[in-house]
Amino acid sequence: MDVALHFRIQDLLARYVQAIDDDRLEAWPDFFLEDGRYRITTAENVSRNLPLGIVYATSRAMLRDRVRALREANVYEAQRYRHVIGAPVIEGREGDQVRARTGFMVARIMHTGETAMFATGCYADRIVLGDGDDVPRFAEKIVILDSRQIDTLLAIPL
Amino acid sequence: MDVALHFRIQDLLARYVQAIDDDRLEAWPDFFLEDGRYRITTAENVSRNLPLGIVYATSRAMLRDRVRALREANVYEAQRYRHVIGAPVIEGREGDQVRARTGFMVARIMHTGETAMFATGCYADRIVLGDGDDVPRFAEKIVILDSRQIDTLLAIPL
Amino acid sequence: MDVALHFRIQDLLARYVQAIDDDRLEAWPDFFLEDGRYRITTAENVSRNLPLGIVYATSRAMLRDRVRALREANVYEAQRYRHVIGAPVIEGREGDQVRARTGFMVARIMHTGETAMFATGCYADRIVLGDGDDVPRFAEKIVILDSRQIDTLLAIPL
Repeated sequence: MDVALHFRIQDLLARYVQAIDDDRLEAWPDFFLEDGRYRITTAENVSRNLPLGIVYATSRAMLRDRVRALREANVYEAQRYRHVIGAPVIEGREGDQVRARTGFMVARIMHTGETAMFATGCYADRIVLGDGDDVPRFAEKIVILDSRQIDTLLAIPL
Repeated sequence: MDVALHFRIQDLLARYVQAIDDDRLEAWPDFFLEDGRYRITTAENVSRNLPLGIVYATSRAMLRDRVRALREANVYEAQRYRHVIGAPVIEGREGDQVRARTGFMVARIMHTGETAMFATGCYADRIVLGDGDDVPRFAEKIVILDSRQIDTLLAIPL
Repeated sequence: MDVALHFRIQDLLARYVQAIDDDRLEAWPDFFLEDGRYRITTAENVSRNLPLGIVYATSRAMLRDRVRALREANVYEAQRYRHVIGAPVIEGREGDQVRARTGFMVARIMHTGETAMFATGCYADRIVLGDGDDVPRFAEKIVILDSRQIDTLLAIPL
């Protein structure tokens, strides 16, 4: 087992969720390659082989647009999120690409202080390691939600 | 600190909870030795030195029976689970056996989409590392639940 | 990336939360330097640059006093807590001091068995590594709660 590789993946994921939880949304697209893909779907859709997701972006530029829309809609500021993720399970490596799956829980903290479990699921990631000095980035991130009840999810990056 | 050892333990646990959350229950017994022990109990029972648990199995074959019963009862399919675990704390090592404790939270996602904290607790594991190429396996896994309210727990592996 | 360093920090945090969750509160002050600082505050206070926190201690002796008060008040025994934390993000290192941030969720388990998400937030830690054989300790631990609703929090170490 390649301990250093595991650590790079774990660190990428830890920084990713921390950027979201710290409301540093403008940094969020930079975790992806320029042509990185981002998709939110449900476990039910995956098991039925339905390709459609709730959110689908195919470039960093689309993610930046999304952040801008969130800032303008001003919905994000009214609440906070807290992700806690498990250790990533590395499923394969081809060259400088790694596939990893990581379970997550997200709590939502309302402006009133009320806290509730908001979403749970699994990240299915394809990560490009780049050169030794490079920061790894997501070539593809599929957010697979455990719940099919997703209407309020559209607001936030997961 | 033996970083590589920590990683093998962390990776075993990450794969273990992912198998359950992915509903790959048939893979679950393989995380144990042939004569591996599995017990679910409560913190209250442990502090009172009560040996009895809620679930008690003393072999991989018993775990397989359990999975078969769950599939037949068909209760598992109606809901999903999501484990998130912390980093394991290694408490001791004797030869190729390691004792580790790992905190966990489990959310339950109902078919309707409703999500709630289902169980929290700690794994007290005895793990056999095996040869360098071997996958580590549980010689004993004691699931110590924080809550004494356990009646609905009988359905799922934890 | 220094894998061994990451692991020492992760292990410190894992042992820290496990001591609390196991109700070994008397061991809690030992995770701090003799003149270690401990503060609980909220994300709202931090963003407004309000220095005041909910709890503020500037020495291990003050933490010991706090544990004694908790034991006398006898509030702690009636409930249990379960922390699950993510991987620490190391933000900087100067000499043998490391700054790290780590997201956490805490569930509270009442005597009746009822379990609920109790608190979420982030540890902003300054950690002194000490000599090779030393256990790292907190020079400063700031617990930044996501929620401003904090009245019931005073009872427990976080």
